[in-house]
Amino acid sequence: MADADVTIQHTDQEGNDSGLNRSFIIKGHICHAPEADRIEIREDVYAVCEDGVCRGVFDRIPERFRGLKTIDCSGKLILPGMTDLHIHAPQFSYRGTGMDYELMDWLEKIAFPEESRYADTAYAAAAYGIFARRMRRSATTQAVIFGTLHTEAALILGDEMEKSGLKSFVGRVSMDRNAPDTLREKDARTAAEEERRFIAESARHGWRRTKPVITPRFVPSCSRELMEALGRIRKEYGLPVQSHLSENPGEMELVARLEPDAAFYGDVYDRCGLFGREGNTVMAHCVYSSPEETERIRDNGVWIAHCPSSNMNIASGIAPVRRYLEKGIRIGLGTDVAGGTSESMFRAVTDAIQVSKLYWRYVDREARPLTFPESFRMATKTGGAFFGKTGSFEEGYDFDALVLDDSGEETARPAPVMSRLERAFYMELDRTGITMKFVKGEQILPESERGKCLCTQDKA
Amino acid sequence: MADADVTIQHTDQEGNDSGLNRSFIIKGHICHAPEADRIEIREDVYAVCEDGVCRGVFDRIPERFRGLKTIDCSGKLILPGMTDLHIHAPQFSYRGTGMDYELMDWLEKIAFPEESRYADTAYAAAAYGIFARRMRRSATTQAVIFGTLHTEAALILGDEMEKSGLKSFVGRVSMDRNAPDTLREKDARTAAEEERRFIAESARHGWRRTKPVITPRFVPSCSRELMEALGRIRKEYGLPVQSHLSENPGEMELVARLEPDAAFYGDVYDRCGLFGREGNTVMAHCVYSSPEETERIRDNGVWIAHCPSSNMNIASGIAPVRRYLEKGIRIGLGTDVAGGTSESMFRAVTDAIQVSKLYWRYVDREARPLTFPESFRMATKTGGAFFGKTGSFEEGYDFDALVLDDSGEETARPAPVMSRLERAFYMELDRTGITMKFVKGEQILPESERGKCLCTQDKA
Repeated sequence: MADADVTIQHTDQEGNDSGLNRSFIIKGHICHAPEADRIEIREDVYAVCEDGVCRGVFDRIPERFRGLKTIDCSGKLILPGMTDLHIHAPQFSYRGTGMDYELMDWLEKIAFPEESRYADTAYAAAAYGIFARRMRRSATTQAVIFGTLHTEAALILGDEMEKSGLKSFVGRVSMDRNAPDTLREKDARTAAEEERRFIAESARHGWRRTKPVITPRFVPSCSRELMEALGRIRKEYGLPVQSHLSENPGEMELVARLEPDAAFYGDVYDRCGLFGREGNTVMAHCVYSSPEETERIRDNGVWIAHCPSSNMNIASGIAPVRRYLEKGIRIGLGTDVAGGTSESMFRAVTDAIQVSKLYWRYVDREARPLTFPESFRMATKTGGAFFGKTGSFEEGYDFDALVLDDSGEETARPAPVMSRLERAFYMELDRTGITMKFVKGEQILPESERGKCLCTQDKA
Repeated sequence: MADADVTIQHTDQEGNDSGLNRSFIIKGHICHAPEADRIEIREDVYAVCEDGVCRGVFDRIPERFRGLKTIDCSGKLILPGMTDLHIHAPQFSYRGTGMDYELMDWLEKIAFPEESRYADTAYAAAAYGIFARRMRRSATTQAVIFGTLHTEAALILGDEMEKSGLKSFVGRVSMDRNAPDTLREKDARTAAEEERRFIAESARHGWRRTKPVITPRFVPSCSRELMEALGRIRKEYGLPVQSHLSENPGEMELVARLEPDAAFYGDVYDRCGLFGREGNTVMAHCVYSSPEETERIRDNGVWIAHCPSSNMNIASGIAPVRRYLEKGIRIGLGTDVAGGTSESMFRAVTDAIQVSKLYWRYVDREARPLTFPESFRMATKTGGAFFGKTGSFEEGYDFDALVLDDSGEETARPAPVMSRLERAFYMELDRTGITMKFVKGEQILPESERGKCLCTQDKA
C-alpha cells in the first residue's frame, strides 16, 4: 500500500492579519504527542515556524532564526491543531436536536429532509457559511467532510471551507439506492457523471487548502455498479476516500442482505478499489468490524474515524479502540456532527476516554481504557497523518497550532502544565479559550481586533 | 415517611441589582416539565413572580398583576433553575485532572491530598470562593454539596454559598476510618462532637439560603458508632442527609466485608436513621443497588442523585435509571465534580441520556433509553423536590429561573422552540448563554453592567 501524498500546498508569500507571513517564533508551553502513549510538555520554549513548516522546538532561539519575530505566549498552552476525520457539514444545522429518535426515524424525519434542502444553493451558501465559520473558530485545523449529493452545494461547501482557512477534504456524497427521491441519483451512471463533474469543477475553484474526496455514503446507499465507477474515478484522479463502516447492528444486517457475496461489510469497498490499497481511505465508526474486516483494515492501511459521541447518541455502541491500537491500526477521532452534537474535538478526546471505560466495564475486561495521552494523540498526530505531516511540533511538520488561554479556569493554586492541558480538554476550553490558531503557519484566529489575543508580538 | 419541609426561607424586602424586589413579570418562551415524560413550551407568554414565588404563566398579564414591572425577554428561552443533587466543593480545584487514574489511586494521589489542604482556612476561603462564583454563573439554582471534615472550612463554604445567591445544603464530611490521618477524626465521639459544633456554628452565621446537611462520606469511611451518632444528630436537628451508595463493584465488596450483618449496603444507613424514613435523604450513584436495596430506597422515599459523567470517568458503570423511574423512585441528577469534570447541569442532562443508550445496548435491552424530557425533568422538578417547590413554573413554586440566549447558535433557518431547547442542552449553552438567573425571585445574574443582558425592562 502506498501512502498517497495528500498534503495540501499553500501558495507562498501569503500574508495574514498579524503580518507574520508564515515565518515566526512562538513562545509558550508546547504540548504534543510525537511518540505513542505519552504527551511531551516543554515549558516556555520556542517553536519555530518557517514558511508554514515547523523547524523544531528550542529552549533558546537558535542563531539562524534570530531574524524572525517572536510571539510571546509565555504561560499559555500551545498545542497542535486537531484533525476531525468525520463530520457532516449539512447536518450542522440540526446539531443537538432530535436526539431521542432512533436511527431510522432520525434519518427519515430529520437528516434526509434537511439534506434535501441543499438542492437550493442559496440555502447551502447560508448554512455552509455558518458551518465554515464555526469550524474556523474550533480547535480543528484539518477536517474530512461529508456534503450532500448536490454538486453545486458541495462546491459551495468547498468554497466556504477554503475561506475558513482550514485544510479540508470535501466530499460530494454518492447515493443511488435506498434513499428518498430527493437524495438519490436516478442511476449509477448519472451518479458517476456527477462525481466527475464535481471533481472537474472543483479544480476550477482555485482551492489551495481544500480537496475533493470520493464519498460513497455507505454500502446501503450505493449500488455495486456505482461503487465500481467510484473506484475507477478514485484511481484516475488519485483521490482519497471516506465512508461509513460497521456502525450499527441493523446496518450490518442490511449490508449482509444487500451484498451476500461480500466476505464482510468492508469487503464491498475493497472489491471496488475504495479501501485504502492504493490511496488514503478513512472509514467512520467500525463499531462492529469482524476479525476479518479488522485484519483487512490493518493490511490496507485504512484509517478509522472513531466517533464516540455519535455512537452513544445513535445507540450504536462503543468501538473496540484498544484492540485497534494494539494491532497498529491508524485510528483518529471524528465529531460526526450531527450524530455527534458538537464540533468540539476536545470533547471528542474526552468522550473517547469515557466510553472506553464503559467498554472495559461492560464489554471486554481485557481492553484497558484509553488514556488522555492516547486519545490526544489520536486527535492530533494519528488522525493528522491522513493529511500528511501535521499534529505535532516535530521538524518538518506543517505548523498547525492552537494557543490556549486557560486563565478563565481559576484555581486556588497553580497546577502543573500537564494537568492544565488535561483540564482544558475535559472543560472543552476549545469553545472559549483559543486565542490564536495557525494553519500551515497562517494565523486564522483571532479574527478581529476585538477578539485579539493577549499575546504581545515583539521582535526577538 | 414524612416529607420534612426543607424549603429555605428568604427574608422579605430583599432588593437586587435591577431593583425588581422579587416581584415582576417576565416575558419569553417558558419551557418546563410540570408533568412526567413531556416538556411544556409556551411561546412568548408572561410568567409572574410575586415575593419570589411563581404565580403562574399567562398568555396575557392578568389585571391583578398590572402593577408589576415586566422584563421583556421575548424570543428567549426561560427555564427552571437546575438542581445539582451531588457535588464536592473541595474537588472543584482539580476538576478535569487525573482522570486516567483508577478510583483508589485517584483518591490516594489526588482527592485526599487536596482535601487535606482544607485544614488551612485561607486556602479554603480562596478555593471555595472560586467554587461559589462558578456555581453562581452556572445553570444551578439549588445544590447539595459535600465539603471536607474540616469544620471551619465547611463554615466558609456555607458563607461562600450564601453569598453566591444559590439555595444550598452544605455538608461537613464525617469520617473516622479508612482514610489518611489528615482526613480522619480520632474517634466516633470526636467526629460527632465536631458535627454538632458545625451545626451550632452554622446557626450563628445568619445563613438564609444555606443549611447544613448530615454527611457521612460513605460506609467505608464511617464506623457504626459514628453512623449511629449521626442518626441521633439528624433526628435532633431535623436535618437532611447526603451520602454515597452502591457506586462501584470494589466498594460493594469492601462494604460487604466491613458490615457483614447488614442486609445490603443501604441497610447500614437505614439502621442508623440515615435513610429517608423521617427526613430527606439523597444518595449518590446507586449503580449497583440490589433489588432489596432498590425496594428500600423506594419505600423510604430516598432521592437518588444520578451522576453519569462521574460513573463513566471512574469506570463505575451505568445506573439503571429506567428501572428507578418505573418504580417511581425520586431520582435527580448530580454533576459529582470532580468525579464528574464539569459543574454544567446541561451536560449532566445529556450525559444521562447518552449513557442510558449504552445501558440499553449493552446491559438491559428492556430498559428503554431516557428521553430529553425525562432527563430535563430529573434536573429540574424531580431533583428540585429535595428543596421543596422548585424546578417548575407552576403556581406556588419558588421562582428559580434562567433566561437563555441561544442566538450564538446560528442556524440557516428558524428552529422550533423545542429543538432550540434540546440543542441548548446538547451544546451546553449554560456555559455561555445564561443572560439572567433568578433564585426565589432574586436576580443573581448578570453580575455587572458589563455582562448585563440584552433584555429591556419596561413597565407593562
